[in-house]
Amino acid sequence: MNETMLAIVKPAAAPGARLERMPLPPIGARDVLVRVRAATICGTDLHIYKWDTWAQSRLRPPLVFGHEFCGDVIAVGDEVETVNVGDYISAESHIVCGHCYPCRTGASHICRNVKIIGIDRQGCFAQYVTIPATNAWRNDPGLPAAIASAQEPFGNAVHTAFATTLTAKRVLITGCGPIGLFAVGIAAAAGAERIFATDVNMRRLDLARTMGATDLIDAREDVAAAVLAATDGEGADVLLEMSGNAQAINQGFTALRYGGFASLLGLPGRPLPSFDLATHIVFKGVTVYGVSGRKMFETWYQTRGLIQSGKVDISPIISHHMPLEDYEQAFELMLSGAADKVALYPNGMS
Amino acid sequence: MNETMLAIVKPAAAPGARLERMPLPPIGARDVLVRVRAATICGTDLHIYKWDTWAQSRLRPPLVFGHEFCGDVIAVGDEVETVNVGDYISAESHIVCGHCYPCRTGASHICRNVKIIGIDRQGCFAQYVTIPATNAWRNDPGLPAAIASAQEPFGNAVHTAFATTLTAKRVLITGCGPIGLFAVGIAAAAGAERIFATDVNMRRLDLARTMGATDLIDAREDVAAAVLAATDGEGADVLLEMSGNAQAINQGFTALRYGGFASLLGLPGRPLPSFDLATHIVFKGVTVYGVSGRKMFETWYQTRGLIQSGKVDISPIISHHMPLEDYEQAFELMLSGAADKVALYPNGMS
Amino acid sequence: MNETMLAIVKPAAAPGARLERMPLPPIGARDVLVRVRAATICGTDLHIYKWDTWAQSRLRPPLVFGHEFCGDVIAVGDEVETVNVGDYISAESHIVCGHCYPCRTGASHICRNVKIIGIDRQGCFAQYVTIPATNAWRNDPGLPAAIASAQEPFGNAVHTAFATTLTAKRVLITGCGPIGLFAVGIAAAAGAERIFATDVNMRRLDLARTMGATDLIDAREDVAAAVLAATDGEGADVLLEMSGNAQAINQGFTALRYGGFASLLGLPGRPLPSFDLATHIVFKGVTVYGVSGRKMFETWYQTRGLIQSGKVDISPIISHHMPLEDYEQAFELMLSGAADKVALYPNGMS
Amino acid sequence: MNETMLAIVKPAAAPGARLERMPLPPIGARDVLVRVRAATICGTDLHIYKWDTWAQSRLRPPLVFGHEFCGDVIAVGDEVETVNVGDYISAESHIVCGHCYPCRTGASHICRNVKIIGIDRQGCFAQYVTIPATNAWRNDPGLPAAIASAQEPFGNAVHTAFATTLTAKRVLITGCGPIGLFAVGIAAAAGAERIFATDVNMRRLDLARTMGATDLIDAREDVAAAVLAATDGEGADVLLEMSGNAQAINQGFTALRYGGFASLLGLPGRPLPSFDLATHIVFKGVTVYGVSGRKMFETWYQTRGLIQSGKVDISPIISHHMPLEDYEQAFELMLSGAADKVALYPNGMS
Repeated sequence: MNETMLAIVKPAAAPGARLERMPLPPIGARDVLVRVRAATICGTDLHIYKWDTWAQSRLRPPLVFGHEFCGDVIAVGDEVETVNVGDYISAESHIVCGHCYPCRTGASHICRNVKIIGIDRQGCFAQYVTIPATNAWRNDPGLPAAIASAQEPFGNAVHTAFATTLTAKRVLITGCGPIGLFAVGIAAAAGAERIFATDVNMRRLDLARTMGATDLIDAREDVAAAVLAATDGEGADVLLEMSGNAQAINQGFTALRYGGFASLLGLPGRPLPSFDLATHIVFKGVTVYGVSGRKMFETWYQTRGLIQSGKVDISPIISHHMPLEDYEQAFELMLSGAADKVALYPNGMS
Repeated sequence: MNETMLAIVKPAAAPGARLERMPLPPIGARDVLVRVRAATICGTDLHIYKWDTWAQSRLRPPLVFGHEFCGDVIAVGDEVETVNVGDYISAESHIVCGHCYPCRTGASHICRNVKIIGIDRQGCFAQYVTIPATNAWRNDPGLPAAIASAQEPFGNAVHTAFATTLTAKRVLITGCGPIGLFAVGIAAAAGAERIFATDVNMRRLDLARTMGATDLIDAREDVAAAVLAATDGEGADVLLEMSGNAQAINQGFTALRYGGFASLLGLPGRPLPSFDLATHIVFKGVTVYGVSGRKMFETWYQTRGLIQSGKVDISPIISHHMPLEDYEQAFELMLSGAADKVALYPNGMS
Repeated sequence: MNETMLAIVKPAAAPGARLERMPLPPIGARDVLVRVRAATICGTDLHIYKWDTWAQSRLRPPLVFGHEFCGDVIAVGDEVETVNVGDYISAESHIVCGHCYPCRTGASHICRNVKIIGIDRQGCFAQYVTIPATNAWRNDPGLPAAIASAQEPFGNAVHTAFATTLTAKRVLITGCGPIGLFAVGIAAAAGAERIFATDVNMRRLDLARTMGATDLIDAREDVAAAVLAATDGEGADVLLEMSGNAQAINQGFTALRYGGFASLLGLPGRPLPSFDLATHIVFKGVTVYGVSGRKMFETWYQTRGLIQSGKVDISPIISHHMPLEDYEQAFELMLSGAADKVALYPNGMS
Repeated sequence: MNETMLAIVKPAAAPGARLERMPLPPIGARDVLVRVRAATICGTDLHIYKWDTWAQSRLRPPLVFGHEFCGDVIAVGDEVETVNVGDYISAESHIVCGHCYPCRTGASHICRNVKIIGIDRQGCFAQYVTIPATNAWRNDPGLPAAIASAQEPFGNAVHTAFATTLTAKRVLITGCGPIGLFAVGIAAAAGAERIFATDVNMRRLDLARTMGATDLIDAREDVAAAVLAATDGEGADVLLEMSGNAQAINQGFTALRYGGFASLLGLPGRPLPSFDLATHIVFKGVTVYGVSGRKMFETWYQTRGLIQSGKVDISPIISHHMPLEDYEQAFELMLSGAADKVALYPNGMS
């Protein structure tokens, strides 16, 4: 084991990040130390990199950031019994308290005292990272590293999609960022009768087709009209809202059928300036579910059932693979919209 | 049987109503003719009486209005097999098509082709009314007429309240109009641990206490703060939104706990000018259900289980009882907020 | 339209059946008259043909039997509004009363007063049949006749399978008769992670593989051991019991995981001689759902979503296609176990 | 703190128990040490006392037994953060592993590696007991000790009853031992329209009436006929099976309506000799749920919502209160059927 490691650090309260050499993180009694195989970049990491308003209000630099990763356990704390040195693991990034009301009722994904890896403690854009043993998820040895890492955001899509049944349903997915594209793949694997995907980026709509979408709609057009026309005026059975965009949200609800189900993952940056609650929800008898994180760990079992069995292949969405050192290029690619998901390899790309 | 009857008619596209003598309604092959014992006044009837924008866009006078009633079947059409002359019935006011997608999947309450008694066809503010036999609900002989009539709006409260489980829960009910007050009584019957009721009308809050509310909150105060303070900062498990008021909706969602359930019946008159979807629904992992009408006829069985068994006594909410002829006084009482629910008796008050 | 038609009749209370020429059935005011394209043979029809104990206790000959079919509407009763001459329809075989508790609460599939086509009234093994218009289900024009007919038993499998979610689950299907094989196809379309199929007939297990089963188990072996070995000792998430065989039922419950879900369609011919309720259900915290008929008409919409979209291809299960006149050969093939599903064509096989 | 304590011990593999003086139990790093206020006796403790077949196969004497209790925390282990000295707590008796599939998916009540207090480790029939801090449930200071102790078995009834909704339902409860009687009280608090209670012990049926049962049925009579007669031939909406008696189970399913819900807690001592799966479950479209333990900790929150709010008063079911030293009399009272629930007080009865 090296005495030091390379890590991407947000050194101070300002835009940008720096590659630094630093000591390995200490291992608590219930922690495991992981040698990172791959880490993938999330939209949240771009907020941190750019140092936007949200990041300014939330982070306390200096901090190693990044929270999506996989790797090999190389040491375990004294009280760890369920994870072993040599295990190939991915990580649930939410560290939950275990004693609040949600935690005590099977809803840890909305823990009132959650700490997030790479936000509230040292993250994974580094050669090594420690996490609580209970946050480790054991992978099949053969699972490619980039895919193993991306199981975390894939889990967000699973949580969103599995809030209702998609088999034999007409599903509208608004927003084809990586998580929206994951959701397209999940809906296809679940046997959705028809999958409508919307975005303003045509490259992403092409990827949506690759993932199994049957109908691609430019989000600047009248999405609701297109969906209604394709469903005998009935509307979509299910809305998976992945964009957080106010217009997409209104389109989505308008396109939803009476008695339909809306699963909302996208986070609008500010309150909606106009939301027709009566028409969108009350009159139509709609059910809405808000999605936060991943169900711990039901979502991970479902993820395993989809990914390790080959039901969903997410490799097309991981558009770029780079050594950790190329992090600046990676962030810029994602900021420009030219990349979907980028995987960084802190310990070599073999 | 009289050859003519008295009825309250909206004679033309203008405010007000008139008591007229007119022929009895014709009986279709699948209809039943009912001699009305009692009819109760709904907020919708006030819209029609005042002839507001909604009424202007929806009604085609002349029309006998009113849709909440009970009475005795005095004749049945040729094809009616399940309702008999002499039956004492209440009426489901929504006449559904039976062949749209919701109707064919057990969700007639959101029928795409619904016709409503007293809006789309002759109503019940009259001595006699005809309805399809399938809309008749048989009552116990001993059920008081005003209560039998008010089962229809009570059913809205049942549908709202039974969208989730209330037993041992902390329930927030925003808005104490008649349906909100019904909901308070249902929550109490269901064994809610605590029932928070809000309104701006203190007389209604007093009635809420009578119906079983444990905590009364003036809606002009900080409702969310009061609920959070009373629940160890956790929030209410369930929100039953009965007001349609934008501020109450925001207060209600703010007071709702992480992972809570919101059942929405109140209809905002226009789109909400600001709705914080991210905070109110997504982050908190909230489930929302929009309530329209009554489940046909599951809601009616539940209503029977609550009312005819004496679990809920709604008589305190029926504040006034009057002969049909006093309809103008009845409407004015309700418009002024001095009355809760008014029962009209077209065939005598015995 | 011919004045007479050919039909397979059970002429008297004895084994066998006879091809007879008889008048066309009369059309009631709410009925439609259908020229049958294809009719498929159900296990129930074999009971009637053989005239076993069940058939003796249930049927009143003479009777045209058969209840799975599709065809073209050639006349409609006076009050029919939602089905038109020329419609290509399949039929829900359960004629429900509409006024019992289940019917009034969206559960017509367990109607207390159900009448079944081909059992309680004239059936479809004939050139023409009448059914209530509300029992007609409109098909896409291009749907092959045998498949359109087999949607009815396919619906049983849909109802069984959709009682829970199968996506990313490990599913055990005990019994690979036609409905079990349909269930295999549905589980595959729904993205089940793994599908265990059992039977004693190796030809049927081969078909199960064709339909998407991942693990074939001879039902005479230790099914539970095989499933547990393949699931890290965890057991199957879901049991779809399609055999009605006492041993299979015990194996199935033994193979089910703690907290699993069992959907039971198979009908044991007599009470189970030994059922370990404590181990199979109580200790394990299992949920069990009994399946009767098809949800009307939710199951049909789901069926359409699976079949007409091509998600499930059931053509391999329809092993034989014959003119109506060859009915004796058809019944014998099915009784011998050499056929899966046989389609009869009363008006030519084009 | 005393250096030694009194405890009821099963000293060897034989019937009976002995009061012994022994050292206080050691406190692990995540444990809390509790001074027991009250401990209540469970049917399981009678099995251990009698040393029946089950006890012989499960226990390894010597062992302090007992698992229902409440008390005051007087010391906490080094790593305990969420429980404090001075807390007045009750205990969840199931110590779960936290890493099996059920534990990781919010279903710890069916943990695959569960250890039970008083069975797999030292129990609570003693002046002091240690438990893991995560098994502690904080009580209101004013909750009487016997009631606080009995929350554990009450939780079994809550889990059973809350598996479905009881409000406005007709509920059949078969078996009026303490947990059955708890269930009667819960059904009453939840606003069940009608509560049928069965037992062969008339004293217990009287208690059922006290707890809120509306209809008492001698279990030796035709229970199903009585329930059907009282429900227009429809049957009970819900069966809560608390007896484990084969005849009661058959009666219960026969009395259940089409589409009903059966929640099964009672454990038959051996496989049912005859169970009519087709009639009881499949044809009727029934849903069955097996109940094991308490949902951790959702059931405890529900318990608090019912007990601490006064919705259910279980004091009539705690028929006897005795000092720990009178344990032999206590066991004999329960074995004879003369007692319902007996509370023992190891540190004085004040």
